[in-house]
Amino acid sequence: MSLFAPPLNRLIEALRLLPGVGPKSAQRMAFHLLEKDRQGALVLAGALRDALEILHHCQDCRMYCEGDRCPICRSSHRDEGLLCVVETPADVVAIENAGFYRGKYFVLMGHLSPLDGVGPEELGLDRFSERLRRGVREVILATNPTVEGEATAHYLAAQAAQIGVHASRIAHGVPMGGELTYVDSGTLSHAFSGRHRVAQTDPGSHPADESF
Amino acid sequence: MSLFAPPLNRLIEALRLLPGVGPKSAQRMAFHLLEKDRQGALVLAGALRDALEILHHCQDCRMYCEGDRCPICRSSHRDEGLLCVVETPADVVAIENAGFYRGKYFVLMGHLSPLDGVGPEELGLDRFSERLRRGVREVILATNPTVEGEATAHYLAAQAAQIGVHASRIAHGVPMGGELTYVDSGTLSHAFSGRHRVAQTDPGSHPADESF
Ligand SMILES: [Zn+2]
Ligand SMILES: [Zn+2]
Repeated sequence: MSLFAPPLNRLIEALRLLPGVGPKSAQRMAFHLLEKDRQGALVLAGALRDALEILHHCQDCRMYCEGDRCPICRSSHRDEGLLCVVETPADVVAIENAGFYRGKYFVLMGHLSPLDGVGPEELGLDRFSERLRRGVREVILATNPTVEGEATAHYLAAQAAQIGVHASRIAHGVPMGGELTYVDSGTLSHAFSGRHRVAQTDPGSHPADESF
Repeated sequence: MSLFAPPLNRLIEALRLLPGVGPKSAQRMAFHLLEKDRQGALVLAGALRDALEILHHCQDCRMYCEGDRCPICRSSHRDEGLLCVVETPADVVAIENAGFYRGKYFVLMGHLSPLDGVGPEELGLDRFSERLRRGVREVILATNPTVEGEATAHYLAAQAAQIGVHASRIAHGVPMGGELTYVDSGTLSHAFSGRHRVAQTDPGSHPADESF
């Protein structure tokens, strides 16, 4: 005999699909919705379906948007020659909220992680090269300062070098091992202004970082 | 200009309706569902709607169930004379998992909390009195050992006394200030066996707890 009715078990299991939600939290969420916020449960169900149906990746930057291209990519007030690469849409929000950046973005929706099967194709890097060829003079690598984020930045810098586009990495005002989303605007702004060019190492030459 | 497309903002806001979910978690959940678990998002949306549509309160114990009465209330193998009162369906699960209890339940779906507008009516206590009159010889008060849980237990004990039903409180093997759901089976079982009768204080008499 199951102790909860099957629809309640299914709701609890479904809530556990959310990242960071364990069995106890899922139960608490289910009871809260059923007992105290039935309207909220309907709103959530509707919002989930709408989001799946309506949202696409912007064809230029891969940000979520409603049409083909997002408002930032459509804007003629942003510098087309400056392309900032970030891991997640939340990073775009963090940078936009800091208010200093006037270029465009490319959102990887992750980072290179070969063990998890995330390679250049999964990150849309064919689209990234294509984007670089359309008048980009500098690509700012703003992936997270984690092992995967650094590896991804190096990979992208090599790609940019092949195409002949300058690549820069945001400065380490962002705490190492931390995540971009959690950094305050001042630190982010500092990290951007302190960016340095990523030196491309020819085989046999000494790697050296240059300042702009 | 909103940075996220409206359906994404709506999804993030809807996820924040879940207890314990702040703005950063809601964002993370939304991106996870959109990027890595679109099937999961549909499952969750469906589970929410099904749960709202199908689940009712059992007319005897107020547990969530699919029909009029839950499997425990329908069972003829459980002692009708023993009624255990708990705050939440999760408490029923905790007690059932401990495996020692063979009586029936009454689920308050909360506790008395006058400041939040939760009075006897909101807890279905009219149904509780009615239930006590149907051959209950002992009501076991297993509300949480918190201020509200204790106050609720006292209120229920008074109600039971009026009807002439013995009321007992589970022993304080359950840590004070804790929640029943988080207690291990052994402690729970100990708390049940160590229960003591709640002495009804006549005005002027000394309150005294008795053992069974
Ligand atoms: Zn875009
Ligand atoms: Zn029942």
